[in-house]
Amino acid sequence: MQTMRVARLYGADDLRLRDEPIPTPRNDQVLIRVTAVGICGSDVHWFTCGSIGDARVDKPLVLGHEFAGVIESGTARGTRVAVDPLIACGKCEPCREGNPNLCLAHHFAGHGADDGALREFIAWDPDCLFPLPDTLSDEDGAMLEPLGVALHAVNLAHLRPGMTIGVYGCGPIGLLTIQVARLAGAARVFATDPLAHRREAARAFGAEIFAAEGDEVRAILAATQQRGVDVAFEIAGENAALATAIATAKFGGCVIWAGIPEDDRAVITASSARRKGLTIKIVRRMKHTYPRAIDLVTRGLVDVRSLVTHRFPLEKTREAFGVAARREGLKVIVGQ
Amino acid sequence: MQTMRVARLYGADDLRLRDEPIPTPRNDQVLIRVTAVGICGSDVHWFTCGSIGDARVDKPLVLGHEFAGVIESGTARGTRVAVDPLIACGKCEPCREGNPNLCLAHHFAGHGADDGALREFIAWDPDCLFPLPDTLSDEDGAMLEPLGVALHAVNLAHLRPGMTIGVYGCGPIGLLTIQVARLAGAARVFATDPLAHRREAARAFGAEIFAAEGDEVRAILAATQQRGVDVAFEIAGENAALATAIATAKFGGCVIWAGIPEDDRAVITASSARRKGLTIKIVRRMKHTYPRAIDLVTRGLVDVRSLVTHRFPLEKTREAFGVAARREGLKVIVGQ
Amino acid sequence: MQTMRVARLYGADDLRLRDEPIPTPRNDQVLIRVTAVGICGSDVHWFTCGSIGDARVDKPLVLGHEFAGVIESGTARGTRVAVDPLIACGKCEPCREGNPNLCLAHHFAGHGADDGALREFIAWDPDCLFPLPDTLSDEDGAMLEPLGVALHAVNLAHLRPGMTIGVYGCGPIGLLTIQVARLAGAARVFATDPLAHRREAARAFGAEIFAAEGDEVRAILAATQQRGVDVAFEIAGENAALATAIATAKFGGCVIWAGIPEDDRAVITASSARRKGLTIKIVRRMKHTYPRAIDLVTRGLVDVRSLVTHRFPLEKTREAFGVAARREGLKVIVGQ
Amino acid sequence: MQTMRVARLYGADDLRLRDEPIPTPRNDQVLIRVTAVGICGSDVHWFTCGSIGDARVDKPLVLGHEFAGVIESGTARGTRVAVDPLIACGKCEPCREGNPNLCLAHHFAGHGADDGALREFIAWDPDCLFPLPDTLSDEDGAMLEPLGVALHAVNLAHLRPGMTIGVYGCGPIGLLTIQVARLAGAARVFATDPLAHRREAARAFGAEIFAAEGDEVRAILAATQQRGVDVAFEIAGENAALATAIATAKFGGCVIWAGIPEDDRAVITASSARRKGLTIKIVRRMKHTYPRAIDLVTRGLVDVRSLVTHRFPLEKTREAFGVAARREGLKVIVGQ
Repeated sequence: MQTMRVARLYGADDLRLRDEPIPTPRNDQVLIRVTAVGICGSDVHWFTCGSIGDARVDKPLVLGHEFAGVIESGTARGTRVAVDPLIACGKCEPCREGNPNLCLAHHFAGHGADDGALREFIAWDPDCLFPLPDTLSDEDGAMLEPLGVALHAVNLAHLRPGMTIGVYGCGPIGLLTIQVARLAGAARVFATDPLAHRREAARAFGAEIFAAEGDEVRAILAATQQRGVDVAFEIAGENAALATAIATAKFGGCVIWAGIPEDDRAVITASSARRKGLTIKIVRRMKHTYPRAIDLVTRGLVDVRSLVTHRFPLEKTREAFGVAARREGLKVIVGQ
Repeated sequence: MQTMRVARLYGADDLRLRDEPIPTPRNDQVLIRVTAVGICGSDVHWFTCGSIGDARVDKPLVLGHEFAGVIESGTARGTRVAVDPLIACGKCEPCREGNPNLCLAHHFAGHGADDGALREFIAWDPDCLFPLPDTLSDEDGAMLEPLGVALHAVNLAHLRPGMTIGVYGCGPIGLLTIQVARLAGAARVFATDPLAHRREAARAFGAEIFAAEGDEVRAILAATQQRGVDVAFEIAGENAALATAIATAKFGGCVIWAGIPEDDRAVITASSARRKGLTIKIVRRMKHTYPRAIDLVTRGLVDVRSLVTHRFPLEKTREAFGVAARREGLKVIVGQ
Repeated sequence: MQTMRVARLYGADDLRLRDEPIPTPRNDQVLIRVTAVGICGSDVHWFTCGSIGDARVDKPLVLGHEFAGVIESGTARGTRVAVDPLIACGKCEPCREGNPNLCLAHHFAGHGADDGALREFIAWDPDCLFPLPDTLSDEDGAMLEPLGVALHAVNLAHLRPGMTIGVYGCGPIGLLTIQVARLAGAARVFATDPLAHRREAARAFGAEIFAAEGDEVRAILAATQQRGVDVAFEIAGENAALATAIATAKFGGCVIWAGIPEDDRAVITASSARRKGLTIKIVRRMKHTYPRAIDLVTRGLVDVRSLVTHRFPLEKTREAFGVAARREGLKVIVGQ
Repeated sequence: MQTMRVARLYGADDLRLRDEPIPTPRNDQVLIRVTAVGICGSDVHWFTCGSIGDARVDKPLVLGHEFAGVIESGTARGTRVAVDPLIACGKCEPCREGNPNLCLAHHFAGHGADDGALREFIAWDPDCLFPLPDTLSDEDGAMLEPLGVALHAVNLAHLRPGMTIGVYGCGPIGLLTIQVARLAGAARVFATDPLAHRREAARAFGAEIFAAEGDEVRAILAATQQRGVDVAFEIAGENAALATAIATAKFGGCVIWAGIPEDDRAVITASSARRKGLTIKIVRRMKHTYPRAIDLVTRGLVDVRSLVTHRFPLEKTREAFGVAARREGLKVIVGQ
């Protein structure tokens, strides 16, 4: 039996590099050799805490849901593909309503019973594979997953040309949200982040940043003559960012809530949210955005490449998580 | 100068019956003799705490925004009318977008600088007056305001015939929400309330109630084969009710949040809300619902009358607030 | 090889009763013994013209898409079921967007290459079978298909309690639309139909009918003080009914267009539609409405039974079409 | 009494240059000296036919609703402004619903009883005046009206980044729709027009044009692998363009219908529209888009200036109409 290298998480801060059998794809699967895996903030959460929200590592788990690879079996052998980490059942009520991201019987790579992509090979559903054009690298392919989340977040926002928005949290998903929102015609984007290098990246993508940290709400309201923003995106997963979103959304505005708070409790100032009659939409993964994401990157309308700041081979996955956990750079890719 | 009796709030638990001059209507106003005023939960909040959310009694204030009266000036003199307590400017961005309830320059009877209706006479905008048919009593007229809130809450929910909903909090607005939701075709309504007499009232309007208090979430999920409800209405203004709403909404469902929490902090379990991709819409007052409300009550499609359980004359306004604060009965009306 | 009786259409007015082999279900199918089939207006169109819209009878076709039966194979053998005539692929763009009714690779019983239910047995997808409660007859089961169309039409309309609507065309789908719309809280329903017995049926379901035929537009506008209706449903498939819908929809209103015009050309008075800024939504079949339809009929909220006015055995299918083509009665059922 | 020059239409092809009294603004009006007026396709319709849709020249009328000027009275005297030609009542049902463009009691410059801007001075509602930044010329100001129509049309379309659209009709509104749609992230825009110079202009704004006139439907379907476009904009007011829109919209797609057909009859191929379950939204003027339009032009995100190809003084208004009627160039401006 052939083996492969696998990075498996056994609990908080307990990631082990192991040899495991290469999976044998079922009839409804193909085998994929993984070439690039992005480390997501949620992966870091699992790594550092052994949990996220109300979910916990019940059994050792392979993380990794942002990934690309090469098909190793079947007629499409040799094709470079981006991989949608979500397999939806297609028959439950949410699926039938067009919400595969909320599928009641889904599989998601690197979550629950389904090992993810931080290993050499993975067997996955062929319907989840999207061939990469030559102009897109494997790393680009791995970046399509966070781009898909940003596309879904902006879809929920129903932006119109000329709108003013806020993006609170400028990690990779925040930076992609800024790009997609500008592509959707957002005329002004206000962005906040506690880290200077992320604020700089946001500025490079056209966002307005205010020097005075800690007083972003006042600055954003002043910059809009107290009107606030049409849509406020909470991406950081911090109660402070959620509070900024509630406080800066305009009367009748919308908060798109994509972040995952550390302690699973989100606190909302009720009077402000009520007085403004806000709508709060919570982002859960994405819908079928891969074809659109590939199209946008291929046309040069979204830049995913400059977000990749660190690369590690699979054997150095622990180091990769270390960099991601310390929030150095932007996106960390594990690849071969 | 002629005087009238006025019930004016000076601070927490400091309501004084006084003689004050009868207001002289401006050119753009008419004088109304108040005949019935409902005590709202928010009024009780003002009365017991001297504040609500982040607002405070800055100067002595006359409460009362659910009211009906008789026009005393102008060509329509003698007409019995329900009165919309909201005067919207019609020119600000929310008004232009069809959201007068979010008007940036509004007046609202019994709030801020605008004295309300707990007095014999009030001068108000003629565009806010809606003639009452003979079949509607003055008390019915006062009930159109909470009915309007329920109509707005149900509008936000986009109900469809056959849906299953939850209504958490069965005071007057909750009971009206149950009625309007059933009118919109809700096939099953699950209702909760800590008070037995309110649960009984909800049951009489067709809601399903579970004996086991404290375990409503489990009971509602069991009754729906773990699917949950299409739309969950939080009406109580309690974090427990908001938690029930989050926990019982289906995947892809909607929470309509109408209650006003005591301490202005609402806590949301983020993982549950995110996993289900919920949308949370916050109810702020109502839109132009008076004509529709009058029509529905006149046709006998909504029963407002049986919700009125207590009546007091203006001189006994303190006693009226006492009954309302102890949550005896359902709606308390001050009238003459 | 066992044979069954089949009513197969060879061209306009050429329906032949034949013996054909009982189908052998594939692995992904079950065999169903057909017990009740409703004759739809579109079936009549096929029967009388050999075509509908831009489609034509290319090869002899078995009609019948409103049907119920008994499962004859597999573990659910003996179960009485209503059958969704649409098998959607679940993978095309419309399917993924939650629009299985627009599936690009669908099968539909009694259309194109897929023979329908006017025969003793049919092999069909088990995901399309919905068990009927004991309280629902097989005829009730067949009626769930037109009820589903009405549910979809009303879904598109986003009705709110208290609205005023028009339903132009009072065949079975029109009468079901009236019922569902009233269930959704429509306070007033104006209905038109050239046939007196259909107008009577509409009136029995709560619609308002005007004696003066030919002048319905004037009558409906007068009855609404020239405001018009919130939503106008065109069900008749006649340019006259479409014109009535355009003419009676209110400013900013919506036209739900469900009918299929005889000559495939629909004419719209552009100035009226434009001045009112109308939205026209075209009804195509239905989404996943069977569970909801069963629930509504079981609860007694929709009456499908009284719409069935004629019944014929399969051998008399020609007579059944004759009655339907002459528009006698309401729904004609072919059953055994 | 002081007089001014006025271009007044007396009937088809009967435009007279006259001296008339300068209007005296009412208390709720200000006087504006007109500096630039765009000739709209609807103006040309009035000029050549003396009618449009079902409206006719009842009494001599001054046309001109795309205009800018200088305030000549009141405290803002001397301010250069763009003028919204629509005065909505703010109180009717459509106004209250956020649809001032459908106001039941509106005034519109150059329509019905309200003379337009093809004269030296006009008295108008100060709420309709939008100060022009120094960087915007008077002609730019006049162009904000057609830009507003394009903004409204794109708003109705709910575009998302990466969508493919069709714009059928490349006059000024079509060209502005192309620009705004691209600003909203449209990745591909297919455009058609019978006139070569308009097709060239569309191409310059990023649209794809197919050489083969008359076979655009086939070409657009081929270019999208038969999928069609997400949204099809009918701008030409020709039945041929409407047919192209119906034929090229994708399954589940949307047709935005902005054009005004010559003979007031629009013909829709019912079977195609029904099979695809299309939604057709009809564009009527615009909502409150002036501030957004000014912002977009000021930021350089929309180019209105290059659309102005002809300029005439007021005395040569007849010549201006001649050029516009012959569809030479793009936008004709009458100004001083």
